[in-house]
Amino acid sequence: MKRAAIVGASGYTGRELLTLLARHPGLRAEVVMTARPGAEPEPPADPDEPAIAPFDAGRLAEVDGVFLCTPHGAASEVARAALARGARVVDLSADFRLRDPAAYARAYGSAHPAPDLLAQAVYGLTEHARAALGGARLVANPGCYPTSILLPLLPLLAAGLVDAAAPIVADSKSGVSGAGKTPSERTHFGSVHENCLAYGVGVHRHLPEIHQAAGTDRIVFTPHLLPAFRGILTTLYLQPAAGVTAEAMRGCLQERYAGEPFVHVRARGLPELRHVRHRNRCDLAVAASGPLVVVVAALDNLRKGAASQALQNMNLLLGLPETDGLT
Amino acid sequence: MKRAAIVGASGYTGRELLTLLARHPGLRAEVVMTARPGAEPEPPADPDEPAIAPFDAGRLAEVDGVFLCTPHGAASEVARAALARGARVVDLSADFRLRDPAAYARAYGSAHPAPDLLAQAVYGLTEHARAALGGARLVANPGCYPTSILLPLLPLLAAGLVDAAAPIVADSKSGVSGAGKTPSERTHFGSVHENCLAYGVGVHRHLPEIHQAAGTDRIVFTPHLLPAFRGILTTLYLQPAAGVTAEAMRGCLQERYAGEPFVHVRARGLPELRHVRHRNRCDLAVAASGPLVVVVAALDNLRKGAASQALQNMNLLLGLPETDGLT
Amino acid sequence: MKRAAIVGASGYTGRELLTLLARHPGLRAEVVMTARPGAEPEPPADPDEPAIAPFDAGRLAEVDGVFLCTPHGAASEVARAALARGARVVDLSADFRLRDPAAYARAYGSAHPAPDLLAQAVYGLTEHARAALGGARLVANPGCYPTSILLPLLPLLAAGLVDAAAPIVADSKSGVSGAGKTPSERTHFGSVHENCLAYGVGVHRHLPEIHQAAGTDRIVFTPHLLPAFRGILTTLYLQPAAGVTAEAMRGCLQERYAGEPFVHVRARGLPELRHVRHRNRCDLAVAASGPLVVVVAALDNLRKGAASQALQNMNLLLGLPETDGLT
Amino acid sequence: MKRAAIVGASGYTGRELLTLLARHPGLRAEVVMTARPGAEPEPPADPDEPAIAPFDAGRLAEVDGVFLCTPHGAASEVARAALARGARVVDLSADFRLRDPAAYARAYGSAHPAPDLLAQAVYGLTEHARAALGGARLVANPGCYPTSILLPLLPLLAAGLVDAAAPIVADSKSGVSGAGKTPSERTHFGSVHENCLAYGVGVHRHLPEIHQAAGTDRIVFTPHLLPAFRGILTTLYLQPAAGVTAEAMRGCLQERYAGEPFVHVRARGLPELRHVRHRNRCDLAVAASGPLVVVVAALDNLRKGAASQALQNMNLLLGLPETDGLT
Repeated sequence: MKRAAIVGASGYTGRELLTLLARHPGLRAEVVMTARPGAEPEPPADPDEPAIAPFDAGRLAEVDGVFLCTPHGAASEVARAALARGARVVDLSADFRLRDPAAYARAYGSAHPAPDLLAQAVYGLTEHARAALGGARLVANPGCYPTSILLPLLPLLAAGLVDAAAPIVADSKSGVSGAGKTPSERTHFGSVHENCLAYGVGVHRHLPEIHQAAGTDRIVFTPHLLPAFRGILTTLYLQPAAGVTAEAMRGCLQERYAGEPFVHVRARGLPELRHVRHRNRCDLAVAASGPLVVVVAALDNLRKGAASQALQNMNLLLGLPETDGLT
Repeated sequence: MKRAAIVGASGYTGRELLTLLARHPGLRAEVVMTARPGAEPEPPADPDEPAIAPFDAGRLAEVDGVFLCTPHGAASEVARAALARGARVVDLSADFRLRDPAAYARAYGSAHPAPDLLAQAVYGLTEHARAALGGARLVANPGCYPTSILLPLLPLLAAGLVDAAAPIVADSKSGVSGAGKTPSERTHFGSVHENCLAYGVGVHRHLPEIHQAAGTDRIVFTPHLLPAFRGILTTLYLQPAAGVTAEAMRGCLQERYAGEPFVHVRARGLPELRHVRHRNRCDLAVAASGPLVVVVAALDNLRKGAASQALQNMNLLLGLPETDGLT
Repeated sequence: MKRAAIVGASGYTGRELLTLLARHPGLRAEVVMTARPGAEPEPPADPDEPAIAPFDAGRLAEVDGVFLCTPHGAASEVARAALARGARVVDLSADFRLRDPAAYARAYGSAHPAPDLLAQAVYGLTEHARAALGGARLVANPGCYPTSILLPLLPLLAAGLVDAAAPIVADSKSGVSGAGKTPSERTHFGSVHENCLAYGVGVHRHLPEIHQAAGTDRIVFTPHLLPAFRGILTTLYLQPAAGVTAEAMRGCLQERYAGEPFVHVRARGLPELRHVRHRNRCDLAVAASGPLVVVVAALDNLRKGAASQALQNMNLLLGLPETDGLT
Repeated sequence: MKRAAIVGASGYTGRELLTLLARHPGLRAEVVMTARPGAEPEPPADPDEPAIAPFDAGRLAEVDGVFLCTPHGAASEVARAALARGARVVDLSADFRLRDPAAYARAYGSAHPAPDLLAQAVYGLTEHARAALGGARLVANPGCYPTSILLPLLPLLAAGLVDAAAPIVADSKSGVSGAGKTPSERTHFGSVHENCLAYGVGVHRHLPEIHQAAGTDRIVFTPHLLPAFRGILTTLYLQPAAGVTAEAMRGCLQERYAGEPFVHVRARGLPELRHVRHRNRCDLAVAASGPLVVVVAALDNLRKGAASQALQNMNLLLGLPETDGLT
């Protein structure tokens, strides 16, 4: 039985990891801590949940793998401490997603806290990173929006099925859990229920991550807030390359993900958030729409968009079966 | 005091009209009927609401104007009966929106029920149809999605600010009231709450209406269902013509709608559904996003997307001040 | 045209008053201010809404009536300032609801801020206070929960239809707007949606107000939080006096409220929150249930539970028709 | 590995059982069928879910245990067929809950379909029925409301802590999934969101079940519909016997359920629906409130209120560990 630490366990993704690890046959949550020394965890409402201890870097030596569910900026030093103690690290924050520290500074408004570690970080979009994940010690777990955009987009770009000059539109709709647990005017029930809004148009922090991973800055990304708690639905609008049909694109995705347990390409119908809620899977579908092809992706932002993908990655880092704890 | 009839008063848009007319200084709901003779109206839950009588064509002679809140297909014959009795008609169904009966047959799956009336029907996107509305007797009230797309788009197209060759993406998100009151698997609370889905990709019935009114079929339209009751948020993605900026587009819309009480172009910030809920207004905003310009439109689908616009139109048909009952 | 001030206009009840006054034929919102001098109001999202000015006691001299939508404790001094300038005051906070300053101190944890004003304050449960409201200068607007409990209960107690010794159970369910606009863990969307909870069992601050107004402390009151924004549904469980039936209780309420425009006693069926949402009315129904009689009351906590009742009271204070702005 | 059949697998409780059995170490869903021969199951939206076959009584011979998720009335004949083939049966419908067929006829409006089987049916409130469940072949799984009421009430009644003459009030709030999947006006999103209502006052079908199991008809039960999907929160109002305190009642429940994995008595704080959502547990808390004691119970109506309790019972029928598939 391998042992894991969860740092920042009181947030939404931390709790989701606790739920997943409770069913894992080969990895257990040995150390469950807050993100910072001073943080005072509330006692668990649920008698079946473990207590959350105050942060203690020394305890990172007790485990094989560390999940970082900390705010961006704070993750870097914990990652350094964990690596120094020999643990493998999956960081769910944004600290190691951008390869260029200058891009980080532009997006997050302060200098990168650990530029020397960037070179060894692997961008963990699992289905597209297995070769690098095997020997990795530090994984940058992708953002929730980027995961929903890159899973459908990367195979189509790689196969040359998308017009190389036209803009690509990614219109994403997310539940409010993506904004985290901290109370704010935006997360107040009165602001969310019966509401919908676009935000961060052209400037969202996930945009450089998407551009970097897709290898193009032609992608126009607009996130929207849904009156819901969980889930991301992304609608992609693609100009097909000359002569390419929606069927060809669907076939490309079906072939690429044929053996993948956590990406499902629908033969017919469209994915809905309810199909992937509390599930570890991203669902995709393709449909023609006038001159463009529409691709719809649905995932649970706290699962395949965060905790599930982190566990997929950790399984690979620790030499465990990739699907353990996830099926 | 002018008199109005509401035919199909038990549906969502019919009730919304009742609410609006209750405050109208110059038009009262004289005749309030079901959409069909046999329909058995439930007694009003609200003691302040009028009873809904079974449909009786003869009573159309008692009024100056008739609102048709009937299913498509059924509206045509009531419109004919009302016109024959001298009443003006605003039809909130789809029967008179498409000028070409063949297009109607393709979209709605049966022959147009009254092709001889099509020529006199005015497409009532009020802010763009006033010249024709003055002398009109029959108005086709625009669909909710088309209203949210055409209000921002028409001025930009007319001014040549949009690339004339590139596709235009309209990604719309709607509350479930747009699907009407009839219970179905899709409108069940268990299917709607915490869910979001795309539907009708490339084939929605509002698509030919949008294409006709915009004068181009380059528009790619995807409707989505929100876990909410009211409201449409539309996100438009536009390729600007050479040298055109987001600021130029915003300026164009601000100038076009400067004197309009029911279209508001924001100088900063983005519209949200909660800003327009239970209001008669469409809110617009413009923002640059990489190579494209994003325009966001928000309206209440039961108000500016249906009942409010219908009342604007009826006011004009009957020679009443356009804003009566709406401010 | 009389003039009103709204102090604390950015909160939920303040905005609701703005909406109501916008349609009032004889009273306009002349002064619209924050609750405190330093408070920085956000610019209104809605172009039709007035700007909210920083608090300025001097401006209270410009108006005939003042609505206080301030937190408890802060209202007292503004009330004193307004009264000194000759204005009538309706206080929507809790400062003047309890006649005994010691009871206030027990419930609110600090000494009453203006005990000398208590004697002149009238408890404004409008339908039961008209005699006193005519000459009043200061009105304590009842709490939302107490309004939903007292309107059905007072006539039944007065008529002796309720067993004088048995406990009375009031089980209330409220939308989250009752908790106000301030973001907190409790009002976070993630805590409210799909949740329901009881709170303040036996110790809620509205309990002494209910006991005082009903003249008995046999009432057991449990508030619950609903996954909804607006509305209170209260279910009362009453032991009838010997020989009293549910029909007799219904008859008593129907007779008592026969001429009241804002209390509706249903002849059949049960009230629902959707029947009273955005309405100024409290709906009541009575049904037998084994050895007890169940009375259900529904109102919109921001309307009849707050702003509407405040406006009813202000109309009476200023000699305006009681229903102005409310029908 | 034992084998189970789920009859009526497309409804909410049937799907919940599928989810639970997917993780069961000793029982697998061998036969998954509709409730009736003609029922045409929609293909599963989820690629991980088994297909639902049309009903075929012959297949009941293939399994050790049968879960009946059929409408009341329909369950009886399937139960008879399953018993004849040697299978154990847990019936989640109401067919075997009332011992007296006349009571069934009064509550459900038609004669009992299998009165000869009633004698062998065990009422499966698991924590209170283990002695009888060991040798049982047919279990009537309790209703969701009764489970939330009986778990807190039975120990207090048995210990004589409740006044033997006073009425007991059970005010229950339920998510809409309790009304099932069939679309109706009541389950339409537009009727549920932002709404709350009482229904079936004094006449709900669960009332005779509650009275029978509690051994008293002094219980007054009012169900309410919440704007939520899952969960029941029940607030009990109890007149304590002379000298009995809330602490004594809490102690009684803590002692009674000390070793129970699926009933949790809180030492402090109150249960909320979010604490038990997607969990197999009923949470209880006790608090004094004036002359009465308030007990709050929370459970997931599809889990401990239906599928989880059914699986607890089936585990016992088949000689499997009671907690298998549930922890």
